[in-house]
Amino acid sequence: MTDLLSRFSINQMTVKQLSLPELTAACAESGIRNVGLWREPVRSYGVEAAAKLVRDAGLTVTTLCRGGFLTAIDPGERARALEDNRRAVDEAATLGTDTLVLVSGGLPAGSRDLRGARERIADALAELGPYAEEHGVRLAIEPLHPMYASDRCVVSTLAQALDIAEHFPARQVGVTVDTYHIWWDDTAPAQIARAGADGRIHTFQLADWTTPLPEGVLNGRGQIGDGAVDMREWKGYVEAAGYTGPIEVELFNDALWARDGREVLAETAARFVEHAGG
Amino acid sequence: MTDLLSRFSINQMTVKQLSLPELTAACAESGIRNVGLWREPVRSYGVEAAAKLVRDAGLTVTTLCRGGFLTAIDPGERARALEDNRRAVDEAATLGTDTLVLVSGGLPAGSRDLRGARERIADALAELGPYAEEHGVRLAIEPLHPMYASDRCVVSTLAQALDIAEHFPARQVGVTVDTYHIWWDDTAPAQIARAGADGRIHTFQLADWTTPLPEGVLNGRGQIGDGAVDMREWKGYVEAAGYTGPIEVELFNDALWARDGREVLAETAARFVEHAGG
Repeated sequence: MTDLLSRFSINQMTVKQLSLPELTAACAESGIRNVGLWREPVRSYGVEAAAKLVRDAGLTVTTLCRGGFLTAIDPGERARALEDNRRAVDEAATLGTDTLVLVSGGLPAGSRDLRGARERIADALAELGPYAEEHGVRLAIEPLHPMYASDRCVVSTLAQALDIAEHFPARQVGVTVDTYHIWWDDTAPAQIARAGADGRIHTFQLADWTTPLPEGVLNGRGQIGDGAVDMREWKGYVEAAGYTGPIEVELFNDALWARDGREVLAETAARFVEHAGG
Repeated sequence: MTDLLSRFSINQMTVKQLSLPELTAACAESGIRNVGLWREPVRSYGVEAAAKLVRDAGLTVTTLCRGGFLTAIDPGERARALEDNRRAVDEAATLGTDTLVLVSGGLPAGSRDLRGARERIADALAELGPYAEEHGVRLAIEPLHPMYASDRCVVSTLAQALDIAEHFPARQVGVTVDTYHIWWDDTAPAQIARAGADGRIHTFQLADWTTPLPEGVLNGRGQIGDGAVDMREWKGYVEAAGYTGPIEVELFNDALWARDGREVLAETAARFVEHAGG
């Protein structure tokens, strides 16, 4: 089991009902070696304390989620977003992960200008990229499913994410490849190849696509194997593009959150092995 | 008002609380000259009777919605879908519209093969295209938003729709351009130009993008002007591509359906003039 799980990383959000000590203990018991963390629970626990906790448990922190929200027009709001992202970089460095996932942000209130919002992301990264590099952290722009384009993330495809990332060195800015957001896109395999050729696949995440979507479409990400996504096919694309790193399972799912967290962790690891292992 | 409304077409679904005679009467009173019809209410009323009703009211039927659902693997299911689509072509011809909108269908139960499903659509159109042409009807593949890719329509972008349509003459198969489904896509303007150059923009529909999306994500299409879509920008793209035909407003919206249908019709016409008129 341990070998089959060596690339598996449990994203903290998948089992958010577990406290950080519960999560690290459960990982140790289950032979899980990698975790993706979220800023809010880490800050609640204390960043230094969290870093020590995962280090003592022998866990690798594969990513920190999330920075971003860089589409503001208002100068004060923009400055606050940049400052918050610098803190996120600091936290990632403290936790010992080299990857900060970025959710870019939606349209400012009243705006219909997607192009302008995407340009402001690039402008912001020109300030954040060097700061991140100085701290040994890479920024990973995550294209979110187009159903989030207005309110969460104006970057909807890998092609758009790479168009932005390519303004910067790969050691500063790359992309997050998450099956949930791109599985429908027949151009995504070629974009994965493009990202890989440039060394810009900074993390690879799995979630399955199930319907009907819940109100607000946030918390309906399916357990691996329950939906329409062929995980092995997408794993094949990133591997063909040269990616050999950890694979995170990140599920936002009210039904999973209502269950025992250790049980969900064990199920998720087993589903990973079944659908994406080897 | 009449001149500003000359290209406006009210899709029947937007005011589905109105019976067909109520709709035609309300259009006549409001100076609305065009309607897009749906098969189910037309069949309930009687296809010949509906054709006479709209003809006597002086209305042009801009489209019939909808054929499609052509992704079945099971031979019997496939044969039934093809037969149903031939009936839809017959009904379109009887109603005097030259355009049948196609919603292609989702993944068959248990399948994860998007590519295969898209290929089966092309296979089916090889049978339906000539039949439609014989009856003076063009098939208009509608790419649906990627959030419908698994359960309603595996064709998610204009590029995918055109890749399929281009197997056939434009007089047989083209596309539906609907802002609701493509507004997030930065490659869509170029694809509209590609469609226009080939004479494949068979209909142009408007709906606005508003959030939060409702459970099931079907009935939350926003009234024109209420959301993130710049209607005049998209109208500009189709016009630059040579499209000068009617513009349908097609809203699926529980809140609009709960209101008085004549009031919604008047509001929709006014919003069209404000955001897409002239």
